Amino acid sequence: MDEKLSFACDYEKGAHPNILKRLVETNMMKTTGYGLDEISESARNRIRKACGCDKAAVEFLVGGTQTNAVMIDALLRSYQGVIAAETGHISVHEAGAIEAGGHKVLTLPHRFGKISAEKVAAYLEDFFHDASHEHMVMPGMVYLSQPTEYGTLYTREELVAFRKICDQYNISLYVDGARLAYALSYPENDVTLGMLAEVCDAFYIGGTKCGALFGEAVVVPNPEKIPHLFTIIKQHGALLAKGRLLGIQFDELFRDDLYMKIGKKAVMAAEKLREAMREKGYRLCFESTTNQTFCIMENKDLERLGQKVRYEFWEKYDHDHTVIRLATDWATTESEMSALIGLL
Amino acid sequence: MDEKLSFACDYEKGAHPNILKRLVETNMMKTTGYGLDEISESARNRIRKACGCDKAAVEFLVGGTQTNAVMIDALLRSYQGVIAAETGHISVHEAGAIEAGGHKVLTLPHRFGKISAEKVAAYLEDFFHDASHEHMVMPGMVYLSQPTEYGTLYTREELVAFRKICDQYNISLYVDGARLAYALSYPENDVTLGMLAEVCDAFYIGGTKCGALFGEAVVVPNPEKIPHLFTIIKQHGALLAKGRLLGIQFDELFRDDLYMKIGKKAVMAAEKLREAMREKGYRLCFESTTNQTFCIMENKDLERLGQKVRYEFWEKYDHDHTVIRLATDWATTESEMSALIGLL
Amino acid sequence: MDEKLSFACDYEKGAHPNILKRLVETNMMKTTGYGLDEISESARNRIRKACGCDKAAVEFLVGGTQTNAVMIDALLRSYQGVIAAETGHISVHEAGAIEAGGHKVLTLPHRFGKISAEKVAAYLEDFFHDASHEHMVMPGMVYLSQPTEYGTLYTREELVAFRKICDQYNISLYVDGARLAYALSYPENDVTLGMLAEVCDAFYIGGTKCGALFGEAVVVPNPEKIPHLFTIIKQHGALLAKGRLLGIQFDELFRDDLYMKIGKKAVMAAEKLREAMREKGYRLCFESTTNQTFCIMENKDLERLGQKVRYEFWEKYDHDHTVIRLATDWATTESEMSALIGLL
Amino acid sequence: MDEKLSFACDYEKGAHPNILKRLVETNMMKTTGYGLDEISESARNRIRKACGCDKAAVEFLVGGTQTNAVMIDALLRSYQGVIAAETGHISVHEAGAIEAGGHKVLTLPHRFGKISAEKVAAYLEDFFHDASHEHMVMPGMVYLSQPTEYGTLYTREELVAFRKICDQYNISLYVDGARLAYALSYPENDVTLGMLAEVCDAFYIGGTKCGALFGEAVVVPNPEKIPHLFTIIKQHGALLAKGRLLGIQFDELFRDDLYMKIGKKAVMAAEKLREAMREKGYRLCFESTTNQTFCIMENKDLERLGQKVRYEFWEKYDHDHTVIRLATDWATTESEMSALIGLL
Repeated sequence: MDEKLSFACDYEKGAHPNILKRLVETNMMKTTGYGLDEISESARNRIRKACGCDKAAVEFLVGGTQTNAVMIDALLRSYQGVIAAETGHISVHEAGAIEAGGHKVLTLPHRFGKISAEKVAAYLEDFFHDASHEHMVMPGMVYLSQPTEYGTLYTREELVAFRKICDQYNISLYVDGARLAYALSYPENDVTLGMLAEVCDAFYIGGTKCGALFGEAVVVPNPEKIPHLFTIIKQHGALLAKGRLLGIQFDELFRDDLYMKIGKKAVMAAEKLREAMREKGYRLCFESTTNQTFCIMENKDLERLGQKVRYEFWEKYDHDHTVIRLATDWATTESEMSALIGLL
Repeated sequence: MDEKLSFACDYEKGAHPNILKRLVETNMMKTTGYGLDEISESARNRIRKACGCDKAAVEFLVGGTQTNAVMIDALLRSYQGVIAAETGHISVHEAGAIEAGGHKVLTLPHRFGKISAEKVAAYLEDFFHDASHEHMVMPGMVYLSQPTEYGTLYTREELVAFRKICDQYNISLYVDGARLAYALSYPENDVTLGMLAEVCDAFYIGGTKCGALFGEAVVVPNPEKIPHLFTIIKQHGALLAKGRLLGIQFDELFRDDLYMKIGKKAVMAAEKLREAMREKGYRLCFESTTNQTFCIMENKDLERLGQKVRYEFWEKYDHDHTVIRLATDWATTESEMSALIGLL
Repeated sequence: MDEKLSFACDYEKGAHPNILKRLVETNMMKTTGYGLDEISESARNRIRKACGCDKAAVEFLVGGTQTNAVMIDALLRSYQGVIAAETGHISVHEAGAIEAGGHKVLTLPHRFGKISAEKVAAYLEDFFHDASHEHMVMPGMVYLSQPTEYGTLYTREELVAFRKICDQYNISLYVDGARLAYALSYPENDVTLGMLAEVCDAFYIGGTKCGALFGEAVVVPNPEKIPHLFTIIKQHGALLAKGRLLGIQFDELFRDDLYMKIGKKAVMAAEKLREAMREKGYRLCFESTTNQTFCIMENKDLERLGQKVRYEFWEKYDHDHTVIRLATDWATTESEMSALIGLL
Repeated sequence: MDEKLSFACDYEKGAHPNILKRLVETNMMKTTGYGLDEISESARNRIRKACGCDKAAVEFLVGGTQTNAVMIDALLRSYQGVIAAETGHISVHEAGAIEAGGHKVLTLPHRFGKISAEKVAAYLEDFFHDASHEHMVMPGMVYLSQPTEYGTLYTREELVAFRKICDQYNISLYVDGARLAYALSYPENDVTLGMLAEVCDAFYIGGTKCGALFGEAVVVPNPEKIPHLFTIIKQHGALLAKGRLLGIQFDELFRDDLYMKIGKKAVMAAEKLREAMREKGYRLCFESTTNQTFCIMENKDLERLGQKVRYEFWEKYDHDHTVIRLATDWATTESEMSALIGLL
């Protein structure tokens, strides 16, 4: 327990109360394991509906790194690699989970966490024109995160451009939606779940960072694309015995638009924070959209702030300045907001 | 939801009420992620105390297959394999999770789920005497489950014999305790947590099948044996972001002997069931100890029973008979017991 | 250098003189690497012709374990395993190369090194009927060796039966032909290269044990079955820079029936040996066909023989007897034969 | 067969005549397989002597990618990665062989193919200071190539600096010597085999590109560093059955300084070529040392040259210019040199 205010990340509290309530209500039910229960099936159907895709396969996994490792293995052949931003979660912060599955992460330079379809197209064109490309790792899919690790968003138009490239080279498109609630509910966002289901070979809807205790919902719009996904999940040690725990959480998150409401709350708090910071002359950076706010702070100011507030160190800016991240979430309260703004 | 009685397995309900209560109480706390919080630390200390091993490393993982895959990778070098009963969970029901980590499962014949130290000794002796053993997979550890997949138990004496062999060949001993509560509380059992900590290089205390929502607690009595276990866990996609959820569960399970109480309740119910079955002339098999009861049923009797009770198909016995499993657990009620016995 | 007679194995000498001669003749040629040269292309065409399969992909690799690891990886998806005899080379003597690629070897009992299509059918039927089969390793191919590790042969009828089963379950059939020359030239054999090309998804024609310095020629009758095989080979570290060295060897082996002649010579020598042994009352075992002869020897006789002859220890038979293997090869001379028979 | 002059690479011809001669002489010998024969042992001893390291383990492998994959697996633990130049062979041209073994290649920017000890030190310092480094791939070794893929050389002083950093962080240092002959014999080089044995945990002496048909000799100065290397080699499918073929080649290469003579011849030819190119106003680049010469050519000049000479395309320089590589080798003749210089 921490006496400080904390805006360090968006997974420091438990779950949205609706989820806990349902867990308590269903606790003494006996159901079949491994997600084959009726609550999980209900959750699947809510997600299919939200995505406008009746035939989609929906599988529930426990965490983000796990989901990425499973899905990348599922989408690639043994000799293929995955294209990602050099700042992508899979490139940096997954302790080599992708390589442990035998796949190289093929990194491209980013701009505020994003890569562009043009750069991917150029990469692919160069690759297949290289006389020695059969001695190299063949790119088999593109990994994007929405929002990115910098909180930035791809637009509908950008995603369509990625799809076009992927079709041209017959490779897969996958979107990591660990914080998808905060993207979907961001005012300027124009990418819906339905659109993701149209352009992606697979994507996941994040629960852990968006109000669940844990859990990520994988959507495969065209299930024939990945036969035996259940076995692949099991092989990765990613199959939850009491699978209904995941079903319960997503059944709640997709009941009465809770997932969107959770996102909206965090995003509005972040917008309010950014407004306050701009007013007080703070130097925001990386566009700072969705629920994450990045700021270049003087080290001496930061030291003072750090005595009262937990933040995330992002990177050194220069000798005297540091980039930090402040994250709001589904559980950020008015009083926390006031306290933080008061301290700025 | 199922109208039938179910004795199919021991993970069909949620969690022990104490665990749910604590989850609710702590829900709005903000804590550091990844198990670095103070509740997880408290749980670790309770487990260290229960094992009589202050210096042990204790890590919490989500599920059994995951835990086995992580720990086998952690204990082996890349060219080594793991010795296990041909009925071991890792040999049969983990969808190749061990092989996905690059390791062969070296199987030995079993008796009611158990292998013997003598057989392992003979295997190791033959192996290292084989002139071509450097062309084969070098055995690097022994995997046991306590209780086994057949509900049977290793004795203190047997475990000491395994330790001796492992020391002789400088290989590791690992115990899968997915159902450890039901072993520890079985009247004839003489293997304590303290003893496991003495003989094993690593073992895990099962939560999922013993009253938790999910979770397994790995104990490494001598932490220098496995440097960087945290990173290995992360690499396997097995690191829970909100790690305190695991801490909470084990903190409750190891408060006031709850883990033993849970085990005892299930074991006593199973003993009562076996008594009733023997009285009614059922043919029990596989020794049927701890919380699992195995029975050879005539197919026509089984069909009748199956209309009212969910059981686990174990294997075909002959053309007219089938072996089934009936499992009790921490949540089995008196009324469920009476109903089942009434139906026999 | 060894003063003893040696019948220990069939790869103790260098290469057939024709191969060495061609190596010397071509030594100062400059050719493109990686098997893209014209000699390799000529060898491919000779093999295609011998197999009656113009469209086959033919790739040259260096050794047997390597070839098996590459081809099993190429034919399986990440979650699949390979069915093999428990005595199969991949099951026992490849140091876990298959598991290093993430695949489980699913072993079946053998009879003199062979498995039967009936047993495979039963295994597959049981597997897919098991309610929990999605928690298990899905069989994705069948591995056979022709001749087997015991020198025995599959018949045409048997191979057709395997093909039928594989078609029924949509899995692949692969034949390891490390000693294929000795099968093809065995009088009672009815399996031709053309037939292998008809029934297999892939097979390899062994060079190392059949007169080459090293090298195995993989044949994929339907190349679309394995896209990007070149890259898979490279990824396994199995691509020879001076690929023409492999082309040269197979161009010679498949010129003027040399491969058959090599096989025939060894087989006739083995037949002569077996005749002599039977006459002298030796107990042959394992059918002892092709170029390998297995014999149960009294230990004291064996000790005496061992002072003059190098043989392969196969296994302990009982306290007083041992099974040994004597192998002839392309280079076995009349005088070696006379000397050996004289010593029996 | 190619009518053009070729300077495209250094492995287009067969082997140095001494090697072929020895192959022919020894062809009918019978020896134990897998490198356990007396010729291989003689070659090991010559290499130990050349390295001034009697206790070194020396193992012979077939090719470079294979050797890198084996040795990186042997030197790393499952959760570790290898630091390399972004231009390193393992980073780009090994089709993901390193990742197939589960290891990430951690790339650093290069200068003419080299990385600096300072950059590695900074990387390691940053890594271990990063609060989340246990979520990242732990660097476990440094990979260098000598000469680099650009033909450049590390100096004695630089290698000592790498050793110091590796000691400080307790990680391994490995040198890929695919073209080591051309480094050792370069006039300005001050790095000897003895020095490599002093600073490296392992390195390999390249045969394939330095006069052998194929083969690389791994040297592990302190064998306890890598137990069971033989099994690791076998597991990678990298163990040659007729291991003496490798022994023969290295026994010849290390007899009477042949390896140095081979290197010297190629280097002198390259120096002569560079002198001629400079005189004629060609723009050499990347320092152009050892046996590789890099040149920025106008595309129209290149087209003309390409009609007579095979060269290696290296990279596009700008719209009108291209960087090419011309390589000499042990077999480059006076007449080839005159012809090439005449065509420039």
